[in-house]
Amino acid sequence: MKALITLATALLMTLPTMATEPFTHVEPPNWWVGMRDTRLQLMLHAPGIADSEPVLAPYPGVTLKGSHRASSANYRFIDLDIAPNAAPGEITLTLGGRTLRYPLKARAPGSAKRQGFGPKDAIYLLVPDRFAQGGSGQPGGMKEGLKRSAPGGRHGGDLAGMRQHLDYIAGLGFTQVWPTPLVENNSATYSYHGYAATDFYKVDPRFGSNDDFRAFVAEARTQGLGVIQDIVLNHIGSGHWWMADLPAPDWLNAWPQYTETHHARMTLQDPYAAPSDRKRFTDGWFVPGMPDLNQRRPELATYLTQMTLWWIESAGLSGLRTDTWSYSDRDFLSAWSARIMQEYPRLNIVGEEWSPHPAVVAYWQRGKKNHDGYVSHAPSMMDFPLQANLLAALLEEDGPHTGLTKLYEGLAHDFVYPDPANLVLFDGNHDTPRLYSVLKQDVGLTQIALAYLATTRRIPQFFYGTELLMQSPTERDDGAVRADMPGGWPGDTVNAFTSAGLSPAQRDMQAWVRRLFNWRKGSTVIHKGQLMQYAPLQGVYVFFRFDAERTVMVVLNKNAQPAVLALDRFQERIRGGEQARDVLGGKVITLGDRLTAPARSPLILEWAR
Amino acid sequence: MKALITLATALLMTLPTMATEPFTHVEPPNWWVGMRDTRLQLMLHAPGIADSEPVLAPYPGVTLKGSHRASSANYRFIDLDIAPNAAPGEITLTLGGRTLRYPLKARAPGSAKRQGFGPKDAIYLLVPDRFAQGGSGQPGGMKEGLKRSAPGGRHGGDLAGMRQHLDYIAGLGFTQVWPTPLVENNSATYSYHGYAATDFYKVDPRFGSNDDFRAFVAEARTQGLGVIQDIVLNHIGSGHWWMADLPAPDWLNAWPQYTETHHARMTLQDPYAAPSDRKRFTDGWFVPGMPDLNQRRPELATYLTQMTLWWIESAGLSGLRTDTWSYSDRDFLSAWSARIMQEYPRLNIVGEEWSPHPAVVAYWQRGKKNHDGYVSHAPSMMDFPLQANLLAALLEEDGPHTGLTKLYEGLAHDFVYPDPANLVLFDGNHDTPRLYSVLKQDVGLTQIALAYLATTRRIPQFFYGTELLMQSPTERDDGAVRADMPGGWPGDTVNAFTSAGLSPAQRDMQAWVRRLFNWRKGSTVIHKGQLMQYAPLQGVYVFFRFDAERTVMVVLNKNAQPAVLALDRFQERIRGGEQARDVLGGKVITLGDRLTAPARSPLILEWAR
Repeated sequence: MKALITLATALLMTLPTMATEPFTHVEPPNWWVGMRDTRLQLMLHAPGIADSEPVLAPYPGVTLKGSHRASSANYRFIDLDIAPNAAPGEITLTLGGRTLRYPLKARAPGSAKRQGFGPKDAIYLLVPDRFAQGGSGQPGGMKEGLKRSAPGGRHGGDLAGMRQHLDYIAGLGFTQVWPTPLVENNSATYSYHGYAATDFYKVDPRFGSNDDFRAFVAEARTQGLGVIQDIVLNHIGSGHWWMADLPAPDWLNAWPQYTETHHARMTLQDPYAAPSDRKRFTDGWFVPGMPDLNQRRPELATYLTQMTLWWIESAGLSGLRTDTWSYSDRDFLSAWSARIMQEYPRLNIVGEEWSPHPAVVAYWQRGKKNHDGYVSHAPSMMDFPLQANLLAALLEEDGPHTGLTKLYEGLAHDFVYPDPANLVLFDGNHDTPRLYSVLKQDVGLTQIALAYLATTRRIPQFFYGTELLMQSPTERDDGAVRADMPGGWPGDTVNAFTSAGLSPAQRDMQAWVRRLFNWRKGSTVIHKGQLMQYAPLQGVYVFFRFDAERTVMVVLNKNAQPAVLALDRFQERIRGGEQARDVLGGKVITLGDRLTAPARSPLILEWAR
Repeated sequence: MKALITLATALLMTLPTMATEPFTHVEPPNWWVGMRDTRLQLMLHAPGIADSEPVLAPYPGVTLKGSHRASSANYRFIDLDIAPNAAPGEITLTLGGRTLRYPLKARAPGSAKRQGFGPKDAIYLLVPDRFAQGGSGQPGGMKEGLKRSAPGGRHGGDLAGMRQHLDYIAGLGFTQVWPTPLVENNSATYSYHGYAATDFYKVDPRFGSNDDFRAFVAEARTQGLGVIQDIVLNHIGSGHWWMADLPAPDWLNAWPQYTETHHARMTLQDPYAAPSDRKRFTDGWFVPGMPDLNQRRPELATYLTQMTLWWIESAGLSGLRTDTWSYSDRDFLSAWSARIMQEYPRLNIVGEEWSPHPAVVAYWQRGKKNHDGYVSHAPSMMDFPLQANLLAALLEEDGPHTGLTKLYEGLAHDFVYPDPANLVLFDGNHDTPRLYSVLKQDVGLTQIALAYLATTRRIPQFFYGTELLMQSPTERDDGAVRADMPGGWPGDTVNAFTSAGLSPAQRDMQAWVRRLFNWRKGSTVIHKGQLMQYAPLQGVYVFFRFDAERTVMVVLNKNAQPAVLALDRFQERIRGGEQARDVLGGKVITLGDRLTAPARSPLILEWAR
């Protein structure tokens, strides 16, 4: 009975008890019993506590293992062990005359075994500030206010708005949502993007509260949507509270004078890289406003790892997208990903390594046997190489090494990856020009790209607004790329969510995307089937997905004219006489000697094997 | 005494005895005692001999193991074993009333241990028909005569001409010569290029005789030049004598109707390739005039292997360049390369795999652990990926994934290769546009490319005429690319070999190339030293070669202005105060805080470590 009451109390405690304690920061703000790794390191921040020895009030299963200070006089790091038999509750630590009542919660049922996103899923990426405004967006006390007219200003999108439109996302056929970072970015300017955290443990009040985020995730789950959190391990914002009182000088990658990374990511694989060049890549800063974290500092490595676990556990995430992957310390990434996957063996982590080279992206995927013995535990990576090839396929003239050949040979490079089906392929993201614009406002080419995204052996990730043929300059222009979703703001005359005011072309595309991804959602042959491809010929690229029950034929014809294909070329997959359904058009045709692929379009046919 | 006489006899016998025997073909025309693999299979061709059982006159150490026919009535294949203790001499075989006296020669001293070309070498590629005419070039009985005015005609270059100008090649600093194929190509038109053999065992009479070739190789050796033979395993010319009487229908890759390869080389690595597509790549024909060999036919595999060994042993080659590598049967290539390297463990073989992808080229190099278990024994491959990157580096604007970044990241990909230093990097070849033209007639960029070629961790291969700034269209135009070397023909008013009539720019370039490659010839730090590179910044790319004794700094500045480099960036390799010699300019400078790299030029500095 007492255990039950304690459990109930713990479950109700969703917020840290900092407010009632004389600590400026206690992080993580709570922890859980029953984690696989029983260790927990608290970072306590309060004036002058660095040399205070903590005392733990007796609590069954919880042991104080030690504590230490760093350079600052105001931090104490406390190492606890929480044995498997410890019950949820509140532990009490005293140090320096202060008392900390610290929550140990029970984990949600099945938490450790949660299934992360995977090949069965399709991910919808959105930028919270630019998607929809559901609340006021104007809490007090933040340094930057709303200015919707400014491309780099805050436009006021929030969790409430995202939550209101989860039905729209689910209705399009997506099963995962990846919002760009939601944590506090309290900078005076250019704060909307979220990649310059000022508090790792707090949702930005302009987006809502931590509870709002949890509610968003919970609501998404009821709609069949998992939520992927965007985690930044490499840097913080210059307004982060650490900056006023760094725990230690080596908390950041410090340089005699400001030194920017040269983005030479291959220094990490290059057998010829100068050590100083490698250091410059990893330890150089992105921009002056993003202090670069030194994850070789053990307390920081622990901090970032616990922070990640805390969000997964407290918010109920289905996975992580990790920003600027290789810019963090390589050994830290190995240990960090190992710890995450130890705790959540079926979770997924997708890292951002913006390289056009499969050998570089493969280096970071779990299971790769690397030349230098490096081991990563990240199950997935963003497939930048294949995305670049997809665009080249549709933009370049076909040649021995150009155009469709690049896409075909790009996929053929799957032998380089330990788990290619688990890579995330995307139509674009918040850092790249809009697909429709890159493809020169060609709807047919855009549909070819999306059909490929939805049918190849990858996890597809779709950028909000592609369904509306949203445009941008083709040179990088973040403000334009991250334009407001129409209908997300009161008074918008065009509304993506109701389709009101959309042009006929936008309505058509939206409906087409809905058909495509809803079909994918139910197609296990796409989620799990094999793939067989044929070399592109005369501007037409054909591949198949198949399993014991079904066959899907994908024909991508980029010519301005229809193409007639002799089907005997595909003898391995077509016997002839199959009654095939045109997935996007709905018609049923009988496969004979020849098939006409419509001009500059994808054709997806499906039949029982 | 008797053995000595036998040996002397054998050494004198350099020609097969076919002329005195009633066989239309006996191939190989001779063999040697003391080969590691004691097996030899003779292909005998004569009317109606297919079912004739051979009888071997007793010869110590030589055993007749068996014989068999194929489909044709006119071929008999005879399997012999030549034990290690067999003496040189002549064996006698009788079959079908015919007698064959067949030479078994002694091998040249050290033959098996010959050192093939390698990183110490620089290769000069030339097209024999287009280099120099030393004889008449007009033997009787050939289907195509001379027509120097035709871009695709025979221009009359020959072995005599090549031999006369070996001093020129050696004087430029090269240590290896690769002539495109010299074997008979007796076709009615377009026969000069040599890649459509009509007789695998005979030098084309327009070039000279087999003895002329041996003399050329011997003469080259006295000048410090090895000779690399260009071997074609994938196809023959339609005028090959086999075509009138195929040993078996499956001697060629036969198709119900003419089927051309689609050049989809990645079908061989692609985990998703359709088997029919893979077959089309390997078994499809290049062009109707080049019948595609089926190396899965065992006698043909043996034939091609023995033919290769025969040229190495009889001509004294230092290596092989193997044409259209992956188009031959993959398993055959493995066995073929294994056999060659078994016999000549220090030889080199460089294969032509025209792919921009390191993962594809690496697949074929000896020592690569492949995803599918495939094993190759070729020590080298042509480095098409890095060559493409070299051109892109100099043609494209620098960006995160363009320009110099491509060259830098291309070399960083060396972690993919089992032995990157043994790859052959080239400025161009007989199939690619001329370097100077591709680089828009920019002498500075051309020198940057050549300096890179000569100093990076590769075996450099140089195309004849680059030293004269020879030009071509930038789209493929074989006739223009393979233009005549000026001075190679009587009456030429311009003469590369004497420098008479060259423009000042040509003379400068020729002298510059001579300095560059003669310096490389003596630079063990380039042959064997380590490499360290720094990410390109602001259009300048810097790398070092170094060993325990010397350091070479290579600065490639592609800007139109001089670049000032702060040398503290290169702290790993420069201490400061070094007395460095400008290898190409001759000046000696003292390295201080800064170094000025001249505009759009390479700068190579060298100092004692």
